[in-house]
Amino acid sequence: MINETHDANLKSWVESANDPNTDFPIQNLPFCRAIDESGSEGPFVGVVIGDKILELTDENCAAIDVVYPFGDSDDAVIRDCSSKTLSDLRRTLSNALRAENEGTFREILAFDLHDRAECQILHPFLIGDYTDFYCSIYHATNVGSMFRPDNPLMPNYKYIPIGYHGRASSIVLSGEDVKRPHGQNRSDAEKPPIFVPSRNLDYEMELGFFVGQGNELGQPIPISAAEAHIFGVCLVNDWSARDIQGWEYQPLGPFLAKNFATTISPFVVTMEALAPFRTNAFERAAADPQPLDYLADENNKKFGGLDINLEVYIQTEKMRDANIDPFCLSRSNTKDLYWTIGQMLTHHASNGCNLQAGDLLATGTVSGKEKSERGCLLELTWRGKDPIDLPSGEQRRFLEDGDEIIMKGFCEREGFRRIGLGECRGRITPAD
Amino acid sequence: MINETHDANLKSWVESANDPNTDFPIQNLPFCRAIDESGSEGPFVGVVIGDKILELTDENCAAIDVVYPFGDSDDAVIRDCSSKTLSDLRRTLSNALRAENEGTFREILAFDLHDRAECQILHPFLIGDYTDFYCSIYHATNVGSMFRPDNPLMPNYKYIPIGYHGRASSIVLSGEDVKRPHGQNRSDAEKPPIFVPSRNLDYEMELGFFVGQGNELGQPIPISAAEAHIFGVCLVNDWSARDIQGWEYQPLGPFLAKNFATTISPFVVTMEALAPFRTNAFERAAADPQPLDYLADENNKKFGGLDINLEVYIQTEKMRDANIDPFCLSRSNTKDLYWTIGQMLTHHASNGCNLQAGDLLATGTVSGKEKSERGCLLELTWRGKDPIDLPSGEQRRFLEDGDEIIMKGFCEREGFRRIGLGECRGRITPAD
Repeated sequence: MINETHDANLKSWVESANDPNTDFPIQNLPFCRAIDESGSEGPFVGVVIGDKILELTDENCAAIDVVYPFGDSDDAVIRDCSSKTLSDLRRTLSNALRAENEGTFREILAFDLHDRAECQILHPFLIGDYTDFYCSIYHATNVGSMFRPDNPLMPNYKYIPIGYHGRASSIVLSGEDVKRPHGQNRSDAEKPPIFVPSRNLDYEMELGFFVGQGNELGQPIPISAAEAHIFGVCLVNDWSARDIQGWEYQPLGPFLAKNFATTISPFVVTMEALAPFRTNAFERAAADPQPLDYLADENNKKFGGLDINLEVYIQTEKMRDANIDPFCLSRSNTKDLYWTIGQMLTHHASNGCNLQAGDLLATGTVSGKEKSERGCLLELTWRGKDPIDLPSGEQRRFLEDGDEIIMKGFCEREGFRRIGLGECRGRITPAD
Repeated sequence: MINETHDANLKSWVESANDPNTDFPIQNLPFCRAIDESGSEGPFVGVVIGDKILELTDENCAAIDVVYPFGDSDDAVIRDCSSKTLSDLRRTLSNALRAENEGTFREILAFDLHDRAECQILHPFLIGDYTDFYCSIYHATNVGSMFRPDNPLMPNYKYIPIGYHGRASSIVLSGEDVKRPHGQNRSDAEKPPIFVPSRNLDYEMELGFFVGQGNELGQPIPISAAEAHIFGVCLVNDWSARDIQGWEYQPLGPFLAKNFATTISPFVVTMEALAPFRTNAFERAAADPQPLDYLADENNKKFGGLDINLEVYIQTEKMRDANIDPFCLSRSNTKDLYWTIGQMLTHHASNGCNLQAGDLLATGTVSGKEKSERGCLLELTWRGKDPIDLPSGEQRRFLEDGDEIIMKGFCEREGFRRIGLGECRGRITPAD
């Protein structure tokens, strides 16, 4: 629901939040975990505002008249948290950070404002399980037509938000390097496979979303309640070794092709901050089936979609050396996803599978209809057949050592303040 | 390595450990976590001996001259622990629990001996990630020939220990009920799928193994070091809804068909306790490829296999009411696995994927060559075509509500004391 926290005219007494270029105006207030490296204190939970992070504590929450809901900040994880609790906290913070309320709240909060640049940003949650979906029909159709030209889209695709379990331990934060993995590769079907560094390393541009409130084992989550279980979103780069994937994935799906690293942006933009940027669910063609009842809901149909712009940039080593700006590889939008994040979550729990606070779900590669909207190199270069020309004079079929992938996400709508998801960066380092 | 802790003549001053029928003689000493329900203390880490559990504490470990390695028992999880540390602890405990050393140690340890029957047994580890393999070539061939008669065994099977990520949150302990899950089912390809309680519910008899010592992200584990990273083994029932699986699994593998529940036995039998029951790795046919170098090692070839007998029993509600004993459905043995657990672990980390202490890996269904050795109903009834007759006069194609599946595991070898893995039980309750 759009409320006063979304008012485009709001300004903050934290000056940098009023910069028109910031991803983090007072209308956003994403959550994160961090350590201030200039101090000696432990990890804390905070909200991002401009170039600052406001540390949340029992004390300052009490002083602004809201309950600090995340338990011990030594555990420094965001605990099971209802959307009501989160909304109350966000509104109170929004109020306390407003320019007009500077007199009342600046003194209370200023001590707990950290410079973002001096903070080490941590994983926002303890991620118990990570699930990756495959919910862009454009991506699924493109990939399917490369690997199964006679049968690009499986018959289940329009009925099931297809997903699989990913690896939680290897989820890393934006800015961490990613080492090129070794793996089995059988590019020549006449010869035995070989075990070599991956030759077809790729990224995948995805949206991630965190569970804020779990469900008990055996207790599904109805579609009408799905969004109340979602804390917020981040950017996800689901790095993929296509040569390993092609050889290993049958019959049980991707494994080592994906689990060497997954990079996330560290600031969790809440569902409430996204309220102005909701859109209708994907409009299915007349010939397409409607979702089964357990995935169908009027509210989900009207407002279940998300209008989030996603951009992918590359900067090679040569480009860095020559001071050439990162080059935009694609622009896509989550409104083109065939399934909503509410449907993904409800489907996931529909067999009683217990989701837990901090679990990460991701949409799968977000691609659109156009070539410029393809969210991975596999699609953009059509499996390497159609290389991309870079402004450095280089070409790319897949990622080379030294390449950095920079993902960005933001929301814009007439009458509302632009908010951003920050960045999700990772650079490829050579295999050992 | 076989050492003095394996001496078949050893007796314990804990009388019940000398019962020839116990799974837990002094030669075993599996680890677990528990709470004594007769007391008010919190969870503890302990070793099972006969019908007792010896709680391990800083104090009693110090008193028997070994370091308690598991940190705070309030966290009550087994931490990153080298095989050397574990071996030292086990030898010291074996010595302290020997009948001949009763005079020295009984007084020190008796206070920390809990009756197993009065303990609530907990998850042995905080399981970060769960990975399930598919390493029985008999199982893979049987299942493959049902679903892909023209192509039962994928070309990658003899090169890759095929595995996929499972769900950690829904791993439950022996004795917990399992609710029949709902899911999409498209048994009639002419009609749209329906969302109903699973009709083809199955179990899978697997061996699980826990990581004791992890690896850093980006640092593979050579095959020669693999076993040093394994803490020990348990029984795993990878419950599977075959109708959900058949419809959802392409192209990304099983998801909701498996993640509604996975049951484990709670006592972790250490690799050292298993030392007398090692066997050679699977003997490949002359025409079969040898494992690639990164999965090959002389020691693994000679001793990488495990000779563990696995048994599956069923007891239906009608059988319970009529006091009919559980009926044996199959007997198989882990020595028939195509890949060793060391190869599974090394493959898993071969791309740099970081394994963490407490991660659970499982072998996949352990089936043998014979029909009586098939480790799931899918194989035993050949997808329901060939039902099983039970002593109650009932038949089973798949599991019915009220059915209990009881899995057992044990090791026997001439000249050594039989040791067991305990039981892995679960009963199906009706869908909501």
